[in-house]
Amino acid sequence: MEIQFKDGLVPVIVQERRNRDVLMLAYANAEALELTRTTGYAHYYSRSRQKLWKKGEESGHVQRICRILVDCDEDAILYEVEQTGAACHTGHASCFYRTVEGEEIAGLVFDPEKVYANKGE
Amino acid sequence: MEIQFKDGLVPVIVQERRNRDVLMLAYANAEALELTRTTGYAHYYSRSRQKLWKKGEESGHVQRICRILVDCDEDAILYEVEQTGAACHTGHASCFYRTVEGEEIAGLVFDPEKVYANKGE
Repeated sequence: MEIQFKDGLVPVIVQERRNRDVLMLAYANAEALELTRTTGYAHYYSRSRQKLWKKGEESGHVQRICRILVDCDEDAILYEVEQTGAACHTGHASCFYRTVEGEEIAGLVFDPEKVYANKGE
Repeated sequence: MEIQFKDGLVPVIVQERRNRDVLMLAYANAEALELTRTTGYAHYYSRSRQKLWKKGEESGHVQRICRILVDCDEDAILYEVEQTGAACHTGHASCFYRTVEGEEIAGLVFDPEKVYANKGE
């Protein structure tokens, strides 16, 4: 398997194993993918902060890896996870909580003010 | 809702509504997204062929749109679809048919030789 990193990154779809919700889309570099495989917890590369991060390092909302899948072209990855807490920094279980028309389809599962001391994850 | 296109494109996760499998990751430009919304069938922008395409235009394996979701940062989209045939040009239902270790987790649902006259979709 030869993962195709583009500008050093590969997009990662994250799916909750239990209810199969798509939780988020993020990016990994080779180091983040390697740490994800060796530690069993999801790591990413933040394009805005330009650094490696472990999901939940601040919030405690970690993602335990169940399986890592690769697509046919080897240029996209899927982390199948069990999410602790919620994936989205807004307090929603999934980052995909709105339709393109702007309708909210899911409520909050936590209060982000109480979970994040400083914003940005 | 102000979709954040990067270099004119936004990544699109595609999920089958019925079994909730993640089918593929592709990209849309503004025109592809607009066509998807107005026609009710998934359209994308091919980075390799540098053109708009309707999924299934050659194979007949179209994706009927059930819902379009947008993530918290408005820089990723999810098409919830009902897939006709299979999403992957290899003949697998989903493009994510292998683990990162190389194990195939799903079989073929069609013979790509019989479906695609010329390859490349």
